[in-house]
This record gives sequence, structure tokens and C-alpha cells, in this order.
Amino acid sequence: MITESGGSVADLGEWGLIAAIAARMPPGPYSRLGIGDDSAVVAAPSGSVVAAVDLLLEGRHFLRSWSSAHDVGVKAAARSLADIAAMGAVPTALLVALAAPGTLPVRWALDLAAGLAAEAGRAGAGVVGGDTASADSVLISVTALGDLAGRPPVRRAGARPGDVVAVAGPLGQSAAGHALLSVGVESFPELAAAHLRPAPPYDAGPEAAVVGATAMIDVSDGLLADLGHVAEASGVWIDVDSSALAPGATLARAAAAVLSSSSGTKGADSPEALARGWVLTGGEDHCLVATFPPAVALPARWRVIGQVGEASDAAGAPATRVTVDGAACEGPGGWEHFRPGQ
Amino acid sequence: MITESGGSVADLGEWGLIAAIAARMPPGPYSRLGIGDDSAVVAAPSGSVVAAVDLLLEGRHFLRSWSSAHDVGVKAAARSLADIAAMGAVPTALLVALAAPGTLPVRWALDLAAGLAAEAGRAGAGVVGGDTASADSVLISVTALGDLAGRPPVRRAGARPGDVVAVAGPLGQSAAGHALLSVGVESFPELAAAHLRPAPPYDAGPEAAVVGATAMIDVSDGLLADLGHVAEASGVWIDVDSSALAPGATLARAAAAVLSSSSGTKGADSPEALARGWVLTGGEDHCLVATFPPAVALPARWRVIGQVGEASDAAGAPATRVTVDGAACEGPGGWEHFRPGQ
Repeated sequence: MITESGGSVADLGEWGLIAAIAARMPPGPYSRLGIGDDSAVVAAPSGSVVAAVDLLLEGRHFLRSWSSAHDVGVKAAARSLADIAAMGAVPTALLVALAAPGTLPVRWALDLAAGLAAEAGRAGAGVVGGDTASADSVLISVTALGDLAGRPPVRRAGARPGDVVAVAGPLGQSAAGHALLSVGVESFPELAAAHLRPAPPYDAGPEAAVVGATAMIDVSDGLLADLGHVAEASGVWIDVDSSALAPGATLARAAAAVLSSSSGTKGADSPEALARGWVLTGGEDHCLVATFPPAVALPARWRVIGQVGEASDAAGAPATRVTVDGAACEGPGGWEHFRPGQ
Repeated sequence: MITESGGSVADLGEWGLIAAIAARMPPGPYSRLGIGDDSAVVAAPSGSVVAAVDLLLEGRHFLRSWSSAHDVGVKAAARSLADIAAMGAVPTALLVALAAPGTLPVRWALDLAAGLAAEAGRAGAGVVGGDTASADSVLISVTALGDLAGRPPVRRAGARPGDVVAVAGPLGQSAAGHALLSVGVESFPELAAAHLRPAPPYDAGPEAAVVGATAMIDVSDGLLADLGHVAEASGVWIDVDSSALAPGATLARAAAAVLSSSSGTKGADSPEALARGWVLTGGEDHCLVATFPPAVALPARWRVIGQVGEASDAAGAPATRVTVDGAACEGPGGWEHFRPGQ
């Protein structure tokens, strides 16, 4: 007998799978019509809707050997929801498309759904719709919707010379967790968790918008790379202050543990350099970085890490759009799909 | 030298690819902020947004040997946009997530984008955002957004005994095109086109809502299967009239051509039976089927094909939720992912 908790998704069938998932998706306060019709309906009280989509692919963004299905659900939801918060918007809803092998255990699909629902719930959003298809590996596409509560969106292009740069949420933890998982060091479970289950500070996005953030982005590619997107869109130069970005004691100990367990981590000859690299170029933390007029009193969780300046004669050369203590930073700038060698 | 029209997407890189695609995506009248920030912003004048997501996978929903990239873009857009129209809403925007091998020619990706933009434009929607990732085969996830113009959504659950059932758009053409392509018959290019580039009658959705449609769905799984969804959600019985669904001369000739070229098309021993199967159970036409109160004067493109009755003692048995001339219809009920044997 096929039950929801045993067997594969092929045993349950597409409609059985959808029904089982739908039953686990509590509606959020903005849901007007959820799973079960051709489309969902979500409240957009501001008269506009903020929308972003992100892909999460097995083997590329997660490994089933590293991540539980619940982890994957949390991560898939967090990536898209962070994009909503980075506009200064309040997340309202998710739509989830899942492609998976017919042999996928139903239990895995339901745990994935639980992770999606949990993270959506943490952000205040409902899971209102989706699609399923069979494929050779697991692929999840999450579309997040949000509401601006009457404010204009905070774009990448609004940073102005004189602004301060500030961040909400920890930097480098996801990269540290990835490095620890890669070498099999299990003594920093909180860092592994930061990689497997990022926890973006969603409320910090609208909070920044309310006090007048001029530009904002979520740290998905790495701090320097994402600040590079802001600097380029805004036509400014951004300098970050390394003393404000010194890795904490845990990251430093984790870097030492990685180096002592591994022969030859590329591009880092000291624990300090490795930990510093995680903070400056590690992606997937999904914390928020924003620019603010200098007179703004920042909300408590935002900490200043740099300054916005005039794009000088070096403008146009991407490497010097963003500097650390006034100097170009060596090393990889962040993650890019389709780049040779990746 | 790498140019936009030569080389592979790996040559161009993720950000180059996104920039090249973004440049080909004209904003629609509802776009407030398009590609280039963490999220897009789309007008939602009614104070709510209609949203649906659909997956299109290479090898499952399309073959690169059958479909041009432009065809795939049209089909991917049409599937999601039809879900918006089926709620009685006006499409406003698309978000597109594309996973593809790094070896994919840039030309293919740009032609895909052109197909997406063309179909979005036909529906009145803009393409406002997306995501890209590398994968072993091409996969496209399209999220469509729409606006209800102040009307309530038309759901699956509203059909009432006494209503008439009506359809807008041709039935069976996509299935006929699929069969012709499968056996290599090239003499019905308009039917192959109907399979490769479905053209849902988007305007017919809001049109039906305005005159009081009680339930609506787009025909993606097959007429009988999709009417089954309506009948089940509404708790009614639906009977379709075969005389209103007689295959036209073109479908009949195509069925004869398929049978004469192929040894043993399953479940059809005559051209008439094959063509009838296409009309009743062929999916992917993405025309709209709706129920209306009997007194409603239907808009010109809607044609009556059946009646809604009380769910009788047979209620609960899915096979008899929908009948043809009062009798249960033999044969496959429509498409379902993960079903054994598919």
C-alpha cells in the first residue's frame, strides 16, 4: 500500500504529491487563493508587487548527501525571500516548481515542503502555488512575491558619494561552513548550519528602507562582488574598512581547522587570510548590505562597514569599483555561473 | 572574439548572458522595475496579484530537435500565461529562470528570449526578471503574474448544475501535431505549429469573467481530464456533447495520415477514433474551458460543448464525473507526471 510517508513520488503520482504538499503549506496573511486552481491570488496592498525567482539545482547549489530535504527547502526559500527583503519589501508569498526523479522518496519531498513552509513562515509569507515535473535530478525554482507598503523600491542604483555602507547579518559563515563540509570537519555545526540553512534577516530590509537606505542588495555572490553591482549601478566607488570586517574568533578557529585538515587550500596561506576571504568574497550568506545617507541613525542590527565615494578616474574598471582600505582586493570576486572552470 | 551571436553561454558568462537577454525584453505596460535589481516591481492595480509557475523541461516537454529555441520560448510563456487567463485575469509580467549547459549556443538562448518576449507581448505582459544556472539539460521555469481588474478570480470550484460548458480556442490540434511529428509526417504544418507554439486565447479569459463565468480552467492535461478537475472541485457532473466536439476535416485527414504512416498507434483503430481522442484527451492546447449560467449570452469565440448536472450517486468515482453523451469515456484521461510508464 502506498502511503504519503512511504514509497516514491512515482508511486504517489503527480496529483497525490501535489495534494500531500498542499496540505502542508499553511496560507500566509497575504494569501487570497492558494494551491488548487490554475493560479494563486496574493494581496498586493500597495498596488504593486515585488517579484524575484531563483533556481536551486542538485549538484550545483546543494548535495543530497550534505543537506537534508528540510535544509534544501529552507535554502531554496531563503534565496528568493532575501531578494524581496533587499528591495525594502515585505515578503508575501512563494510559488515553488519542483522537478525530481520519480524515484525520489515521498518522505524527501514532504520534508522539502516542510522546509519551504518553515522559512516562508519565518518571513511572514505563504506558499501559494507551484508545479511539478519529472527530471533526472532535483531542481527547485522558487518565485517570491512581496509588498512595498507604499514605499519606493530600494534599488542598486541609488548609492551617493558620502553615504555610509552598512550590513545586517553575519558575513562569511556560509563560506566557512562550505569549507568545513568540504574537508569533513564537523566541529563547527553552527557554521555548517549557516551554509545549509541560511537565515536572512528579512525584517532588516524594510527597516533599512524606512530610515532612507539609498541602495541595497543581498549578499549572494560575495560582499565585494555584490557591492560591485551596487557601485556599478550607482556610478560610485565603494571602500570597505577591513577593521569593521575582521573575522570573529569562531571563523578564525574554523579557518585553522580547515587548513590543518587539508593539504593545499587554494589562495590562502594563513588562517587569517582564509577567514578574511570568507568574509569579503564568500557568497550565500544572504545578509543585506545597504548604503545610507551619512546623517541617518541606523537601526540596531545594521553596522557600518564602509563609505561611498566619487567614481574617480578609475571608474569603469570593475576591479577598482570596490576597494578594501583604499586598495584593490586580490582574489576571486565572487560566484558567476557558466564561468569556465566552475 | 566572443560576441553575443557566436559562441556558447559559457563563453559569454552569466552576467553577459543576462545583459544580452535583458536587452531583448521590452517592458510591458505594467512593469515598474525590470531586470537589473534583486527583484522586479510590477503594477497590481487591483490590490492583488494572480500568480502561476510552470516548468518546461528538455526531453520531457520539448525536444531541441523538434522545436526551435523561439518555439520553446513561446511555449514556455504560453503555458504560464494561460494559467493567468484561466482565472479571468489580464497577464501583466513574466519571470523566467533558465538552467542550461554551458555549451548552449548563445544564439539559442537569445532566440529563446525572443520567443518568450514575443508571446509575453502578445498577452500584453512584460518580461521583468529571471535567474540563470548551469545544468546538464535545458530547463525553463516561467512565473506569470496577472491582474483581476477588480473582479473575483474565476475558480475551478464554481460550476453549478444547469450551467453550460463552453470552450474558447481549438481542441486536439496540439495532440495531432505531436502525433504527426512523432511519425515524421510533415504535410500538416499548421498542426505541428499548434503543438510547438500553442497560442492560448488570453483575452477570452477576462471576457468570460466579465459575463459571469462560474468556473474556468485551461486545457493543459486534456479536455476530459481538465473538466474532471472542475467537476471534482465543484462537486458536479459534467456531460459533453460529442456532436459539438466532432473533429474537423483537417484533424480527420491528419489522423488518416498518421495511421497510414505508422504501424499500430495504440488505442485507435480508425482515423475517426484517433481524431476524436485528440479532441477529448489531447493536452497542451491551452485553450480555455469554462462554465456559464444558462442565461448568459456567450461572447463570440466561446462555443457550447456540454452541460453541468448534479453529481448523482456516481459522485466520487472520478471516471463518471465527466461523461460524453452521458456515457463514461474509455481511454486515457490525460497527462500526469510521475505516472508509471510515462
